[in-house]
Amino acid sequence: MLTQEQITAAQTRANDYLQRAGIVLTPQEVGKIEVADLGLSELEKTGLCLVIYINTDRYCAKELILFPRQTCPEHRHPPIGNDPGKEETFRCRQGTVYLYVEGEPAANLSAQPPAGSENYYTVRHEIELHPGEQYTIPPNTLHWFQAGNEGAIVSEFSSTSRDEFDIFTDPRIRRATVVE
Amino acid sequence: MLTQEQITAAQTRANDYLQRAGIVLTPQEVGKIEVADLGLSELEKTGLCLVIYINTDRYCAKELILFPRQTCPEHRHPPIGNDPGKEETFRCRQGTVYLYVEGEPAANLSAQPPAGSENYYTVRHEIELHPGEQYTIPPNTLHWFQAGNEGAIVSEFSSTSRDEFDIFTDPRIRRATVVE
Repeated sequence: MLTQEQITAAQTRANDYLQRAGIVLTPQEVGKIEVADLGLSELEKTGLCLVIYINTDRYCAKELILFPRQTCPEHRHPPIGNDPGKEETFRCRQGTVYLYVEGEPAANLSAQPPAGSENYYTVRHEIELHPGEQYTIPPNTLHWFQAGNEGAIVSEFSSTSRDEFDIFTDPRIRRATVVE
Repeated sequence: MLTQEQITAAQTRANDYLQRAGIVLTPQEVGKIEVADLGLSELEKTGLCLVIYINTDRYCAKELILFPRQTCPEHRHPPIGNDPGKEETFRCRQGTVYLYVEGEPAANLSAQPPAGSENYYTVRHEIELHPGEQYTIPPNTLHWFQAGNEGAIVSEFSSTSRDEFDIFTDPRIRRATVVE
């Protein structure tokens, strides 16, 4: 749950990050930045901001903005009807992103799951992305990611996005932001 | 037709444009920037540079780099099998882009077709894009575009790209670059 003041503050902060990276939004887009606390009410630790540039029935493009050490929690994009699930490419634009997917677990993680939520982070194959580096996540694959100490901006290119169907490992999570 | 020296010079120049816009490529990506003169051997006037970030069987994302007043000539993306044709969203990142599509023609065009090729530019509905502004072109729709005096960078988000099937109005055009 977020207050309107918290949402506006996060939108302004996210736009500052974008501006520092040279990424321009229209004023209308700034006011529509999605601030997702995922129902955990700990936005500094868990959640992210999203700019949805386009989402048609064929493709989607977004900018993801993460504050320092902020974590997007573990989830997957399941098959829906004839769609095998969302396939997505993360391209790091600024900062460092630690991305975790299914596969050989790292011996030591560069990112720690948010305190108190460790049980809901099960995949530990680590991919570290710096500006200009990218990784494509297959459909229906568990993944989570955290920004480094400077925060991060990630361009997401994907098939059609249907966020409302995302399956999060943490049963407390609610995808839609509730405004207090 | 382009010499390897012309290609390398255009790649370096395109990467300079990207760097000024804060867009980072890996060194490997710089060497793979596509320099398209479209067979007309007048790259300063007609053609563009492309960075293909990802092109799966579901979606595609590219960066398009245009030098000052350089023109990407009129073409469309036709249906192929079950695919109704490529749908694409152009988002201007830097500079100004004059985009022309089917529809009500502008009384005065802000961009002039390249001299000598006027006959191959038939659509004149004008859309002017500045940084942060975008436009989605439906499948199988004729379009062409030209950068303003400062050049331009355009992010293209789309369904799967199959450039080899593009249909250009100018019959002299060959999509694949020939290296001399």
